Amino acid sequence: MRLSRYFLPVLKENPAEAQIVSHRYMLRAGMIKQQAAGIYSWLPMGFRVLRRIEEIVHQEQVRAGHIPLLMPTLQPADLWRESGRYGDYGEEMLRIRDRHGRDMLYGPTNEEMITDIFRSHVSSYKDLPLTLYHIQWKFRDEVRPRFGVMRGREFLMKDGYNFDIDKDAALHAYNRHMVSYLRTYERMGLTAIPMRAASGPIGGDNTHEFLVLANTGESEVFYDDRVTALKLGKRDIDYDDRGQVAKVCEEFTELYARTDETHDPVMFETVPEAHRKVGRGIEVGQIFYFGTKYSEPMGATVVNEKGERVPIHGGSHGIGVSRLLGAIIEASHDDRGIIWPEGVTPFPVGIVNLKQGDGAADAACEGLYKALRAKGLEALYDDRDERAGAKFATMDLIGLPWRITVGPRGLANGVVELTSRRTGESEEMSPEAAVARVAAIYEGV
Amino acid sequence: MRLSRYFLPVLKENPAEAQIVSHRYMLRAGMIKQQAAGIYSWLPMGFRVLRRIEEIVHQEQVRAGHIPLLMPTLQPADLWRESGRYGDYGEEMLRIRDRHGRDMLYGPTNEEMITDIFRSHVSSYKDLPLTLYHIQWKFRDEVRPRFGVMRGREFLMKDGYNFDIDKDAALHAYNRHMVSYLRTYERMGLTAIPMRAASGPIGGDNTHEFLVLANTGESEVFYDDRVTALKLGKRDIDYDDRGQVAKVCEEFTELYARTDETHDPVMFETVPEAHRKVGRGIEVGQIFYFGTKYSEPMGATVVNEKGERVPIHGGSHGIGVSRLLGAIIEASHDDRGIIWPEGVTPFPVGIVNLKQGDGAADAACEGLYKALRAKGLEALYDDRDERAGAKFATMDLIGLPWRITVGPRGLANGVVELTSRRTGESEEMSPEAAVARVAAIYEGV
Repeated sequence: MRLSRYFLPVLKENPAEAQIVSHRYMLRAGMIKQQAAGIYSWLPMGFRVLRRIEEIVHQEQVRAGHIPLLMPTLQPADLWRESGRYGDYGEEMLRIRDRHGRDMLYGPTNEEMITDIFRSHVSSYKDLPLTLYHIQWKFRDEVRPRFGVMRGREFLMKDGYNFDIDKDAALHAYNRHMVSYLRTYERMGLTAIPMRAASGPIGGDNTHEFLVLANTGESEVFYDDRVTALKLGKRDIDYDDRGQVAKVCEEFTELYARTDETHDPVMFETVPEAHRKVGRGIEVGQIFYFGTKYSEPMGATVVNEKGERVPIHGGSHGIGVSRLLGAIIEASHDDRGIIWPEGVTPFPVGIVNLKQGDGAADAACEGLYKALRAKGLEALYDDRDERAGAKFATMDLIGLPWRITVGPRGLANGVVELTSRRTGESEEMSPEAAVARVAAIYEGV
Repeated sequence: MRLSRYFLPVLKENPAEAQIVSHRYMLRAGMIKQQAAGIYSWLPMGFRVLRRIEEIVHQEQVRAGHIPLLMPTLQPADLWRESGRYGDYGEEMLRIRDRHGRDMLYGPTNEEMITDIFRSHVSSYKDLPLTLYHIQWKFRDEVRPRFGVMRGREFLMKDGYNFDIDKDAALHAYNRHMVSYLRTYERMGLTAIPMRAASGPIGGDNTHEFLVLANTGESEVFYDDRVTALKLGKRDIDYDDRGQVAKVCEEFTELYARTDETHDPVMFETVPEAHRKVGRGIEVGQIFYFGTKYSEPMGATVVNEKGERVPIHGGSHGIGVSRLLGAIIEASHDDRGIIWPEGVTPFPVGIVNLKQGDGAADAACEGLYKALRAKGLEALYDDRDERAGAKFATMDLIGLPWRITVGPRGLANGVVELTSRRTGESEEMSPEAAVARVAAIYEGV
């Protein structure tokens, strides 16, 4: 993308309304624009990251054997009367009346609707196990929306629902979600720690939240800091293998890690003092096993092997897709701007032309741009007629992890400069070498 | 995808509520489920097609130089009061009041909001031309929603908005949209004819609708039937070349083609009688040039080269993404089910195992499945323990364009059968040849 033809409205000033760094940088980097309290437009750069995050979530859900569908944003109120939850959400639920006077609502979550889909079409244990999920806009009418996309009213969420014949099978689904979530967050460059949580209005016996450590987090967290060193890495997971999946979950949950809601000070004392940490965390996901809480009142049953009709065992599992942008920035920035992890960056690399209009510089930039594109990498090429300082400031603010700087002086020696946004380190090399290096960095990302 | 692990709830009976074939087949093929009048869930198979269509729309918009972003579903009413359109939509606009008593609405279109984004960030002619678009759920509270996704209340639409310095530049944007739309529809296997249209509540001098011929269409159309033979094909379009783009538009609009709203019987008489046709059409898109209709009242101005502040010239351009599924089925089906064009099919090919449990048949199917996947083609493998007739009926209903049939008898001779859903023709060949043939069919699709 040539910046001269893009729409990247960066702001020079810090917006007064933004209290936390991710909100500030998202506004300044031209990623979002507020349209009403807690309701945002995703400007082109923000939309690119949102799509990238959405894509990673899709890929990891499909890898775990979960099946995507899409439920609508609006739901009939009657479904919620059936489950008995119509009152539970109180004023946070956005209630709507249509032109015929029918009660509707903007879905804050989808347990009722997915249960309705299930009971309409599934009736035999032979169709289980089944996990369906979607990524869709939700609405919660928060009293005080704030922190930008971290606590918006209209937000994008992945919510998945498993339907299983018994508790053991449902707990395997729970574990499968935990592992797929760990991989999802790792691909985004995040360390998200599963912590035992309280259940809230979704209900359920087992539930874990995933928290990203950040000073601006809404939850106080208590943990053994060895948990932050755990990595899934590239290990091969067979999501059908109950034993293997359970073992990974054990590995990631055996060290102490809890939010203030479930914190147990006595147990915490058993953590060696050198590893005992208290901090703050941002919730980026939560998984629940809730048994027959929805299947019983709503009649989601199947006929089992013995010919008996039994309610299914279910769970629901959510990832806050739009909120993740904020969480990633909170976890990865400096005082000049965002530092995108390679997995989610809007563009893999930026090209800065130090002297727009200089024949050699322009040609070298065009050459780099095309060579990168031929490798499947779309660079953001700053081809504006601006001074170098302004171009560097923009690149630092928007946070592309790699930058190639091209100027007449370097070109006279046959080199361009490749700079890491994270370390600030630069290296001179030929344009071809720079393309090869960037391509190698993104291989398998 | 193995059908035994998928969620494909096909219906044996014709649903009573479905009056037109696309609605009937979408329900029977397990693509959608109605959740309220005009509000649907997209079950896994339907969601796959929806995503595929969305992807094609994105690709062709980006190819034309248009920039994607994403505006929210809910909008503040004040924006619409500013443009003076708050009343225009009447009861079709879904009005909502939030917990703080603020007036909101579920966006039926986005002229106001995109103009607000533009005026907040753009102030110089140097930032033009600019075309921004998004693909987002919209809501229109139709009195009588019907025909499935063809006339739903919650529907997915691509809407794009151009901002240009003067009328000529804006008309080029209009033409660019026409050409990119033609290519979009062709990739979906559709012949969509641009017809001069009336403008309705969007307003504007120039407007064309794109209509797909189908007996169930909502509009009566009058046309010279030579228009249906026009194809863009693979010709190379430079979307910056005003002359080339205008010429393509001329080619596709010079033959008579109008809806009942703009029909001119006298002019129609000049069409040679052999080519004069009256039929029905489904609207799948519309483009508008509306000049300064929104920029003036809403203050979307830029400073021009002479230093004067002038309102921009705009247009808006829509494609009915979710409705396209219905239109494609109306245009491409037979009495056994859907016939998906290759460009939008949920799976490129189906594999039918005639004798599940037979060692050789199972192994051959697995081999085909993996060999296709290695070519980037995800087959739908019917591995259920069902009789052949039921498997064929399901494949015909869901309409994958190609089917590979595998049975012990053929395998004894080293062959499987490749069948075209459209022609019904079958050919025997080795499994390797079948994979190569299918891969060749999808090359470049």
